[in-house]
Amino acid sequence: MTVRVAVAGASGYAGGELLRLLLAHPGVEIGALTGNANAGQRLGTLQPHLLPLADRVLEPTAVDVLAGHDVVFLALPHGRSAAVAEQLGDEVLVVDMGADFRLKDAADWERFYGSPHAGTWPYGLPELPGARAALEGARRVAVPGCYPTAVSLALFPAYAHGLAEPEAVIVAASGTSGAGKAPKPHLLGSEVIGSMTPYGVGGGHRHTPEMAQNLGAAAGEPVTVSFTPTLAPMSRGILATCSAKARPGTTEQDLRAAYGKAYADEPFVHLLPEGQWPATASVQGSNAVQVQVAYDRAAGRIIAVSAIDNLTKGTAGGAVQSMNIALGLPEETGLSTIGVAP
Amino acid sequence: MTVRVAVAGASGYAGGELLRLLLAHPGVEIGALTGNANAGQRLGTLQPHLLPLADRVLEPTAVDVLAGHDVVFLALPHGRSAAVAEQLGDEVLVVDMGADFRLKDAADWERFYGSPHAGTWPYGLPELPGARAALEGARRVAVPGCYPTAVSLALFPAYAHGLAEPEAVIVAASGTSGAGKAPKPHLLGSEVIGSMTPYGVGGGHRHTPEMAQNLGAAAGEPVTVSFTPTLAPMSRGILATCSAKARPGTTEQDLRAAYGKAYADEPFVHLLPEGQWPATASVQGSNAVQVQVAYDRAAGRIIAVSAIDNLTKGTAGGAVQSMNIALGLPEETGLSTIGVAP
Amino acid sequence: MTVRVAVAGASGYAGGELLRLLLAHPGVEIGALTGNANAGQRLGTLQPHLLPLADRVLEPTAVDVLAGHDVVFLALPHGRSAAVAEQLGDEVLVVDMGADFRLKDAADWERFYGSPHAGTWPYGLPELPGARAALEGARRVAVPGCYPTAVSLALFPAYAHGLAEPEAVIVAASGTSGAGKAPKPHLLGSEVIGSMTPYGVGGGHRHTPEMAQNLGAAAGEPVTVSFTPTLAPMSRGILATCSAKARPGTTEQDLRAAYGKAYADEPFVHLLPEGQWPATASVQGSNAVQVQVAYDRAAGRIIAVSAIDNLTKGTAGGAVQSMNIALGLPEETGLSTIGVAP
Amino acid sequence: MTVRVAVAGASGYAGGELLRLLLAHPGVEIGALTGNANAGQRLGTLQPHLLPLADRVLEPTAVDVLAGHDVVFLALPHGRSAAVAEQLGDEVLVVDMGADFRLKDAADWERFYGSPHAGTWPYGLPELPGARAALEGARRVAVPGCYPTAVSLALFPAYAHGLAEPEAVIVAASGTSGAGKAPKPHLLGSEVIGSMTPYGVGGGHRHTPEMAQNLGAAAGEPVTVSFTPTLAPMSRGILATCSAKARPGTTEQDLRAAYGKAYADEPFVHLLPEGQWPATASVQGSNAVQVQVAYDRAAGRIIAVSAIDNLTKGTAGGAVQSMNIALGLPEETGLSTIGVAP
Repeated sequence: MTVRVAVAGASGYAGGELLRLLLAHPGVEIGALTGNANAGQRLGTLQPHLLPLADRVLEPTAVDVLAGHDVVFLALPHGRSAAVAEQLGDEVLVVDMGADFRLKDAADWERFYGSPHAGTWPYGLPELPGARAALEGARRVAVPGCYPTAVSLALFPAYAHGLAEPEAVIVAASGTSGAGKAPKPHLLGSEVIGSMTPYGVGGGHRHTPEMAQNLGAAAGEPVTVSFTPTLAPMSRGILATCSAKARPGTTEQDLRAAYGKAYADEPFVHLLPEGQWPATASVQGSNAVQVQVAYDRAAGRIIAVSAIDNLTKGTAGGAVQSMNIALGLPEETGLSTIGVAP
Repeated sequence: MTVRVAVAGASGYAGGELLRLLLAHPGVEIGALTGNANAGQRLGTLQPHLLPLADRVLEPTAVDVLAGHDVVFLALPHGRSAAVAEQLGDEVLVVDMGADFRLKDAADWERFYGSPHAGTWPYGLPELPGARAALEGARRVAVPGCYPTAVSLALFPAYAHGLAEPEAVIVAASGTSGAGKAPKPHLLGSEVIGSMTPYGVGGGHRHTPEMAQNLGAAAGEPVTVSFTPTLAPMSRGILATCSAKARPGTTEQDLRAAYGKAYADEPFVHLLPEGQWPATASVQGSNAVQVQVAYDRAAGRIIAVSAIDNLTKGTAGGAVQSMNIALGLPEETGLSTIGVAP
Repeated sequence: MTVRVAVAGASGYAGGELLRLLLAHPGVEIGALTGNANAGQRLGTLQPHLLPLADRVLEPTAVDVLAGHDVVFLALPHGRSAAVAEQLGDEVLVVDMGADFRLKDAADWERFYGSPHAGTWPYGLPELPGARAALEGARRVAVPGCYPTAVSLALFPAYAHGLAEPEAVIVAASGTSGAGKAPKPHLLGSEVIGSMTPYGVGGGHRHTPEMAQNLGAAAGEPVTVSFTPTLAPMSRGILATCSAKARPGTTEQDLRAAYGKAYADEPFVHLLPEGQWPATASVQGSNAVQVQVAYDRAAGRIIAVSAIDNLTKGTAGGAVQSMNIALGLPEETGLSTIGVAP
Repeated sequence: MTVRVAVAGASGYAGGELLRLLLAHPGVEIGALTGNANAGQRLGTLQPHLLPLADRVLEPTAVDVLAGHDVVFLALPHGRSAAVAEQLGDEVLVVDMGADFRLKDAADWERFYGSPHAGTWPYGLPELPGARAALEGARRVAVPGCYPTAVSLALFPAYAHGLAEPEAVIVAASGTSGAGKAPKPHLLGSEVIGSMTPYGVGGGHRHTPEMAQNLGAAAGEPVTVSFTPTLAPMSRGILATCSAKARPGTTEQDLRAAYGKAYADEPFVHLLPEGQWPATASVQGSNAVQVQVAYDRAAGRIIAVSAIDNLTKGTAGGAVQSMNIALGLPEETGLSTIGVAP
């Protein structure tokens, strides 16, 4: 069986990474590729690393172009996905790589995005409790944000097993591709090489409520999230350093048991052996997640760290993984757990 | 007046940075330069960026070589400074860039360094309450660790003004030069470029008790520190992201007032205007510190971020600043607040 | 059909990249993995990006360990391959990723390597005239050097069509992984980040005679090569900028025709459209080669530029490509032309 | 004596670097700072590394703003300098950091820049024969391009001593700051990190005729230049690898004698000891130039390599050096030969 796939937003980093993965997916035929400002251009100019697609020309992002495919991936600016999805039939699998359908709480959406809430779709992080089942057979999927993917996988086992107090403190470093391909002065190579800087400090980052949603669901009670993202001088990768006070009586053994159980059967999440810590280079270009956890007795805190590739597991790889589940394909099809290192 | 200065450990990164600064210091004459394995080699080979010293040859690190100078800087492995200092006269200013004399608590020293405690010298972070006075006229100075410099300056005003709960959570990113010049596989360019990874997680980093010492002194009560350092793909710079729960009633205004007061007269610490956040590139090669603080109301936490150059303000610049104070020179002599950016 | 493969030297960068590719190769079963100093260690520690092999333990590099496989890859220090190969049967395919069997001229070998010449094996750059046929059914293969791969593919069409004078000037930039994983001070991240520097200047680099051998064979007359390699602040990639005086009467059209003809049927070499130039990021992690050529009329020179990933097409990918040909498998099996960008 | 200086174009990289140097210059008072799109903004926002000027506000680039200063530096887009300079009095020292007045040949200008030639001013590369004398007392100075600075200093001694054939082949790598601060997609951090790519290949780069002008003047005959610039993943630095066939009879000794003589008394150009090669990190942030030369006997070519900081010696440092000469100040005032490394 081969499914025919369209990609809306094929000229950006998320779209490019998605095409890189789809080219290696045995069950997929790549159909229409669309862009906005770049419609009419050769993909060989826009994405010179996608050699087999070099002669493809981008079409405009319009419903008649996207129609007639089995799967449509949307890599569009926030707020654009609902209108497109509505015009595609219910039998089409629509995978939204934007934020529009991630949050359950409309008030959260409005506070952080300043527009009406479009709704909530099955959430494409199958490693979370219950998430995989909700994706099976789904025809609408909301791909998680890159930071929430890294953070939720670092911390949810601690919350699911009642080991952590409901106040998480997270500092994450991201490569620059997470900020997209639109040229802005602070994203110039001259600015980011040799520098680290935080942004969205103090609770302002839009991924914060998504983290709280995931961790709160695991904990069975609201979890407060303090999240500080930082921009790191690398093109790919997220390293999320997450901590929370340990509940009284929590031991290192409890933690290893909880994390071991959470990830024993997960094909993409790898709990590292004790003493080894995640590195973003180890997961570059792969759908793998490296996780490690420790108990800092002196501070009374659980420290959990995860590393992902923000474009792969954090965006396009997560999207393909969810597509596989929704279509009933083996979950690992077309995805790798092997990083491109060094 | 010109003071004659010797540098023990001139072939490493700390020694090289110190010489870079001393070459621009109008009150200093550079005397003996020593090394261990590198004794007998030209500095032009070891430190090719120090053009005016290219033809200097390293001498062995021996007391008779270091004697006869007004100031001796020690950039030696941990545990070596005490023996050298004892043999230099009391009238010689000895500035230790190692850890030996930083900690007040002998038990802390023994737990983290595994050797007998050598003692405690005046602490070279003049921005801390009381520290500047203790340095005036001192003939022994302990230069702070690079991480404690960044972290203490980010957080002490909040503690000194009673605004923060005594549990600090710190995640800091450091450039690779902080790990020194001894070749190790995980420090190869191939390994660090494009990657971020934590180390010493769970309370094991030796700079942790030094942070607790500084913050506890500011708070007037013990402060627990959870510290996670990460290695970033850049050669210089520390970005310290620090947070603590706000004491009840703390406001954004309280924070700005506390930080404004702490740094109003400090020549090297710059509290950024609201909304602007520190970047390590902005302080590269300078003795400046950029600090910003915000109150995350939703999480109830104070978020304070600082950026320093780990080799300048974090090591050699801090050493020169303390030397200036100890010798009665203007504190800013030979030091810059201007970063080499981009 | 599945062939059983052993890798001698599995802990280094070449060995790690080879394993990354072999894991994705449908016709291969990975057998013994060996190391020297690292024998006995888990691969998960040495190569943390190779998740599916994390629990494999390195064995010592000994003939009895390597025996009993269909294919043996050697990623050993120079001068070690002959002794191992001799003890493996003639029916075993031995692919040497070292230099030992690349050069035809024993005097060249002795001048550049200072040891007796071991011999010459079929040369694993199938895109060169006659090379593919020599590899079919071969049981010994010499994988080319990374620089000679990039340079030969950039220039041989010009020589094969008699368009260039027999004096080539080459300046190439390489990522640090080309220098290997043994820790040396000048390869530290602190040294290479933010810096470019040449090495082996003036004809001393060992890859020079290999380039001259390939270009001379294409030209049908000796070609003099001036080669300057430079170390660039990136972990992977070679950009080779090559030029030669154009033979009288050469036109831009002649060049495009020659290069177009040379690469029309090559699965891995991509002659870019006019005006687009190679970038190493576009071929990262892939076996693709980007080539472009132009005629600088004012200087009377042909300028040809190629980009490869030094570890993939430059080493391990080239090795797999040659293995495929030798075994009669489709040449592209297990290899990608899609780069991991950005 | 203090001169009052204005800077037109203070928000870009050249302007920022110039201000960094002028802040450390003891004979200078910084007057008006102007910008175009950024007029009205705080310098603390635009150039956060220039702490002492953080509260300065940019004025519009207008003659009445620039008038009344002793020195006016112009860091403007090509073609704008002539109109401004004409309206400033002849007694004002105008230092043009743009290209407008570098070329002597109007036809060259028109071919490469496509606009009428504005004229030729004394050329601010005092190390070239006769250049220093022409700068003494000058009131108009054309600062050289960054690539021509690096290339001319690498090669002119060989030409001035008749050791090289008049066909130079140059491949240079530049950090991204050379491309300026205007945001363009190919200059994003995500694009440049981990990648090298050439541009302006085949004779198209505008710095080519400037190199030919300098080398031809040294040789006393026209010199053909083949120049290929490449973009490297670093923010600062140029490494120029330059070669030419040696004239018959040229020896390594001739080369060392020629270069030794050329640079024996130059404060900023450092001919490295034999066997040591330039590195851009060694000159970062400094006005120093590292040069090395070797004779490749097998290829019959002279290989000369130079390293500069493109923003310092390549632009703003060269401008200050020329200002010093023009004003009769010691040439080294306010300039350093010490790099910020690692």
